[in-house]
Amino acid sequence: MTSSFTTALLTDMYELTMLDAALASGTAERSCVFELFGRRLPPSRRFGVVAGQARFLEALARFRFDEADLAYLADNRIVSTRTLDFLRSYRFTGTILGYREGECYFENSPLLTVFASFAEAVVIETVALSILNHDCAVASAASRMTIAAHGRPCLDMGARRTHERAGVSAARAAVIGGFAGTSNLEAGKRYGITTIGTSAHSFTLVHDDEEAAFRAQVAAMGPGTTLLVDTFDVTRGVERAVRIAREAGGELGAVRLDSGDLVAQAFKVREQLDALGAHSTKITVTNDLDEYAIASLGAAPVDSYGVGTKLVTGSGIPTAALVYKLVQYTDEAGTRHDVAKKSASKQTVGGAKFAGRVIGEDGYASEELLVVADERERAEEIFAERGARPLQVPLVVDGEINRLYVGPQALTDAQAHHISARNELPYPAWRLSAGEPAIPTHYVDVADRPDETE
Amino acid sequence: MTSSFTTALLTDMYELTMLDAALASGTAERSCVFELFGRRLPPSRRFGVVAGQARFLEALARFRFDEADLAYLADNRIVSTRTLDFLRSYRFTGTILGYREGECYFENSPLLTVFASFAEAVVIETVALSILNHDCAVASAASRMTIAAHGRPCLDMGARRTHERAGVSAARAAVIGGFAGTSNLEAGKRYGITTIGTSAHSFTLVHDDEEAAFRAQVAAMGPGTTLLVDTFDVTRGVERAVRIAREAGGELGAVRLDSGDLVAQAFKVREQLDALGAHSTKITVTNDLDEYAIASLGAAPVDSYGVGTKLVTGSGIPTAALVYKLVQYTDEAGTRHDVAKKSASKQTVGGAKFAGRVIGEDGYASEELLVVADERERAEEIFAERGARPLQVPLVVDGEINRLYVGPQALTDAQAHHISARNELPYPAWRLSAGEPAIPTHYVDVADRPDETE
Repeated sequence: MTSSFTTALLTDMYELTMLDAALASGTAERSCVFELFGRRLPPSRRFGVVAGQARFLEALARFRFDEADLAYLADNRIVSTRTLDFLRSYRFTGTILGYREGECYFENSPLLTVFASFAEAVVIETVALSILNHDCAVASAASRMTIAAHGRPCLDMGARRTHERAGVSAARAAVIGGFAGTSNLEAGKRYGITTIGTSAHSFTLVHDDEEAAFRAQVAAMGPGTTLLVDTFDVTRGVERAVRIAREAGGELGAVRLDSGDLVAQAFKVREQLDALGAHSTKITVTNDLDEYAIASLGAAPVDSYGVGTKLVTGSGIPTAALVYKLVQYTDEAGTRHDVAKKSASKQTVGGAKFAGRVIGEDGYASEELLVVADERERAEEIFAERGARPLQVPLVVDGEINRLYVGPQALTDAQAHHISARNELPYPAWRLSAGEPAIPTHYVDVADRPDETE
Repeated sequence: MTSSFTTALLTDMYELTMLDAALASGTAERSCVFELFGRRLPPSRRFGVVAGQARFLEALARFRFDEADLAYLADNRIVSTRTLDFLRSYRFTGTILGYREGECYFENSPLLTVFASFAEAVVIETVALSILNHDCAVASAASRMTIAAHGRPCLDMGARRTHERAGVSAARAAVIGGFAGTSNLEAGKRYGITTIGTSAHSFTLVHDDEEAAFRAQVAAMGPGTTLLVDTFDVTRGVERAVRIAREAGGELGAVRLDSGDLVAQAFKVREQLDALGAHSTKITVTNDLDEYAIASLGAAPVDSYGVGTKLVTGSGIPTAALVYKLVQYTDEAGTRHDVAKKSASKQTVGGAKFAGRVIGEDGYASEELLVVADERERAEEIFAERGARPLQVPLVVDGEINRLYVGPQALTDAQAHHISARNELPYPAWRLSAGEPAIPTHYVDVADRPDETE
């Protein structure tokens, strides 16, 4: 839907003013390594879920400064003419390694590692962070919800609770976290996600009475539809819903409960449905669900969960707190410099990192291994020695986007990969309570380079 | 940037399946009133701030089902052929009253009141809620921050912490809440908002040393720039920054502090700057600020605040919890029916409401008055009697969007209106602590119509 638009101005101004100064000082062409990672997981998260890589790659392909963008920058004297010329022909020509969508991540896991000139790498910081901070937050919340749901389908109904474009992306991230469908039609159209939903209270209310509303819905959608039974009285609503579906020649597909004490109501409604012989009629519940509410419904006779606000707002953690940091540059003499900020509480570890997940003899992950190495081959030797699964894939090679990681198949693959990556984690990963990351992050430094000093 | 795109599929599927069934049952053409409101303010919010009306009106103008949208709906058998025909020619022809952007709102304030057929009104529910839930949440947080800042400029730097498109809208909502600028270039281009920002730690780190980095930035941007002084050692950074600016022929514009104990550092850096004679050099602080952190910096010698995560995520309240409910329909006999859902904890008050804010003799607002009336004139008589300022303006009249409420001037007006509306509130509105809404909401019912019963 936005495929013809540039993403170049979805960017903080300082990326361009830095570029401007670096073009003037000659550092713009220094070969750099930037990493995108989170220093810590939020206290209630035992693992994070990678989502957004496909959207980032699409945004990268459309990261072009068109004439309107350049005119805006020129008119507002944001950068010099030299920089405008650079931006006019901007194309990302570097290489990006990254975690696959659906992969789990932990403290300091390098979700993206960007190998490019300072000029090419710095200007994509904002859009990379925006996309991954949003999508990872939603996917991470979604995964906790699907854990809590123990196989019952979770369905995204959150579009109305977040920015209208964020809702579309949230639906996609939710699928990576294990969700089975979305209410959002644009997400259905753009990403091929199954869409769901039948009616709201307003539909019942605009009819003369509930009887008329249910008849209208069953006439249009067939007896297999889901009827919302709590506009007036739930017991009468259920009786009426089952009867009207049968009069139309079938058993009612499902009832939806959207208010009140869902656990108590689910038991009562299930009992009523069974007493009516409507054993195949399902119960779906909605109404401010989060992973804890879903877990508390685990023993109730509920068939699916519709989740809105808490999904799209990351269940209390609306942004993944990922950062994008320079970790290495190579000077004009060819010397590599590992660099790191010394600021209080914001220290970073310098140098490019290669990431692997050590799998123990029991088949479960035991640590996130970040190898600071000059060459990938050296890191892979260490992974082999320690039994680590390499975590990074080539998302972009010399400016070419890897088509394996964009498009509809990428989403299907991501959902499958998440199940496999989550199943590999030790038991504590599945706990909803606050606590330590499911596995610790350890560094191995086999690089041979001078440290950066002031 | 997205002006040529339809917004029609930014919609929950059930809006269209309801339409499908209502077209079949004959209720689709019933004249309806829907209201968009929040049942409660969040506990920590003494008032809400209206934002998003202009974006909603723009979305409404682009709410068109194009051939690709219709093909998606047809291919996936989401609605019948009859409904596809209806959607193909869909234009909103109704009338919408609403609160102005920048207005304060309270419990049950009708931010939008939509007068249209069921068919026309129901399908715009999702996009209206998405836009207002997001923008009001951000504007409400922004207003608390600008209250806490006591006139010092607050600047949006949150783009990287939220969805890439939400960041653009958040910058706009922040301006309505009193923010003075944004880091986001697309928001600058699209909405004419002042953009800000100079450099990040990566810029310092890619140079041979801090000296070289500062020289490069001052060479490109002049001594009036803002230098980030906390990459290594703040005291040496400040000394170096002032010296390099002076060597370039001017006094340094500002220093930015982005880590550590900002209160203590601000005092120390101000003292150092003054000792160096750099009295005009300002201090800007960033680093996970929210309204409480800003308030705690009130006594510190800080000149401006850069706010990121907490602004764009609504400072703990990322969505405004607004809902869109049918409150009245007129049947084929011409009888008006006030309608309301009876669900536990989700009761609504039926009937169209006209909203006024009662201003007491001391000049401060004392209550939000919602008059349930058959005609606007009757409500206005009551406003006159009670000294209430009418709160609703005509956003759309018979399908025509009121140009007063879209475009750059609308944003300027909204910011000014918010200051005036906020200044009208009694003192408790300015408290950051949790508590009751600053003014209560009261109803007066002068309508003469039968109540809806099941």
